Amino acid sequence: MKNRKQKIVTIGGGTGSFTVLLGLKKLPVEITAIVSMADDGGSTGVLRDELGVLPPGDIRQCLVALSKSSETMRELFNYRYNSGGLIGHSFGNIFLSTLEKVTDSFSDAITEAGKLLNIRGKVVPVTLTRVDLIAKLISGKILLGENRIDESDLSNLKKIYLKPKARANPEAIKAIRQADKIIINPGSLYTSIIPSFLVEDIPQAIIKSKAKKIYICNLINKVGQTNDFTVLDFLSKIEEYLSINSIDWVVYNKKRPDRSLLKKYSNEGKFVEFGNIEDSRKAKFIGANFLSAKTYKQKRNDKIKRTLIRHDSDKIAKVIYKIV
Amino acid sequence: MKNRKQKIVTIGGGTGSFTVLLGLKKLPVEITAIVSMADDGGSTGVLRDELGVLPPGDIRQCLVALSKSSETMRELFNYRYNSGGLIGHSFGNIFLSTLEKVTDSFSDAITEAGKLLNIRGKVVPVTLTRVDLIAKLISGKILLGENRIDESDLSNLKKIYLKPKARANPEAIKAIRQADKIIINPGSLYTSIIPSFLVEDIPQAIIKSKAKKIYICNLINKVGQTNDFTVLDFLSKIEEYLSINSIDWVVYNKKRPDRSLLKKYSNEGKFVEFGNIEDSRKAKFIGANFLSAKTYKQKRNDKIKRTLIRHDSDKIAKVIYKIV
Repeated sequence: MKNRKQKIVTIGGGTGSFTVLLGLKKLPVEITAIVSMADDGGSTGVLRDELGVLPPGDIRQCLVALSKSSETMRELFNYRYNSGGLIGHSFGNIFLSTLEKVTDSFSDAITEAGKLLNIRGKVVPVTLTRVDLIAKLISGKILLGENRIDESDLSNLKKIYLKPKARANPEAIKAIRQADKIIINPGSLYTSIIPSFLVEDIPQAIIKSKAKKIYICNLINKVGQTNDFTVLDFLSKIEEYLSINSIDWVVYNKKRPDRSLLKKYSNEGKFVEFGNIEDSRKAKFIGANFLSAKTYKQKRNDKIKRTLIRHDSDKIAKVIYKIV
Repeated sequence: MKNRKQKIVTIGGGTGSFTVLLGLKKLPVEITAIVSMADDGGSTGVLRDELGVLPPGDIRQCLVALSKSSETMRELFNYRYNSGGLIGHSFGNIFLSTLEKVTDSFSDAITEAGKLLNIRGKVVPVTLTRVDLIAKLISGKILLGENRIDESDLSNLKKIYLKPKARANPEAIKAIRQADKIIINPGSLYTSIIPSFLVEDIPQAIIKSKAKKIYICNLINKVGQTNDFTVLDFLSKIEEYLSINSIDWVVYNKKRPDRSLLKKYSNEGKFVEFGNIEDSRKAKFIGANFLSAKTYKQKRNDKIKRTLIRHDSDKIAKVIYKIV
């Protein structure tokens, strides 16, 4: 690995992947961003319904994160309409969906958009199967769709799965096989991270890969889903979908966000504490201040609630880069 | 002019300019397409209303005509949605309008779109003033907006004007001044051609320019607007807005379209006959078969009626090129 660039694969949804990729883009590494494909909320959901396309939103965020093109182009892609018939849509979502209609291939659409945005690395959908995320509760109740599940209480979750069965995108499998490092990005556990592990052959490919597996743990819990989760609880959940002791490194934040910021989150969820160390674990832990100093704001007309407390992209990227 | 490329400026709306530019693009000439800015129909009208942008539709058609990029990109720009909230919009219109919002400059938006589409030459809005086209009838009735006027009977037209007064785009004036040839494109007389002559300083600049002024006459009349117009009537109308004997050359079609095609147009308007030659005119006339052999079809979900009998782009371009 000394004389060539590290091959880094990231796995996740939109917002969490965005943060990690934004930092990695600046380092001399070969990046493949593998992206969850179960999204059905907001602008993405409308486009899925109305145009019958694959979900563009998370892909768009990853493309913008990896873009080396002008600020204008990146702004254009993230532009969200706040009036008229286009309200709530982001331009980039419309762009990707229309390209998919024109080329009849979501992969080709991503390639063309990647050229336009002059991206470093590749953005690869984890699956090209049109899937819905489904949660079955112990009560027997079925929750259909990522957006619905994201907003629901999953304390009594029995099973979460994709319908129909999703076949892995061969490009994703190839990238996982060839990776030096596989990063599990932060993000909503059940709706941004686990959906990729529900795609056939993906967990097996991750487990088999000789890559170092690095998990970037969430900063804040989500009420009704990961109520009092500690870093170790997150790790256990991830390994439940991969295999025990499959993760080599866990990167977690030790710095509590400002009171005022946490207060805004008081209805949302608690700060993720480290928890008790279990000696039997294979994973090594890297804890530090990984909080971003920037303050984020929910954008107007974005119907999806975004995390406002975020990781520092550069610090995360540096830690990933240095792990050997 | 022998050792450098001819500088050709075209003036017109969307469809007529598209036809002329498609042919000119293939010749070794320097093209500036000056485009009418009074459009308020269809997708363009909705975007003007909802986003408060300048009209993108005619600009988009000229950009696509001059594009040297892949078929995919040109298809993308002309893609028209046929379902959902985006129905009736063309992607290119959304693209230009969003870029205008992001850059806060319609000219910058056109430049960026031109790069993406890898265009030959330049596309220049005749004015950057937000204007409406207004027709006043003899009865005193006011018709507001190009789209409304396009669909109205103008037999009793008293006056047609822009509101507010439109200042010429300096780029348009500059191109007109430096031109070797100025082409008045075919197109709806009152709604695609004359609106450019209503912009302050534009007629004067055309008249003053040392360029050869070449008028490409329409193929078919428009009921209620140019009922029985001959080529000479069209010329007179054009010169009414410029000045008498300002046109050097008139290019007109002598070949009557097929009966079946003309029949489709029986409710629309009659074939444009040449009419009687007036010896006193300065203009020289070039008549030939300029009909396109291709058949055009009205696209689904395009709310605007497009001309289905068109000029042959290559023949028109060749004639323009050869005039000295």
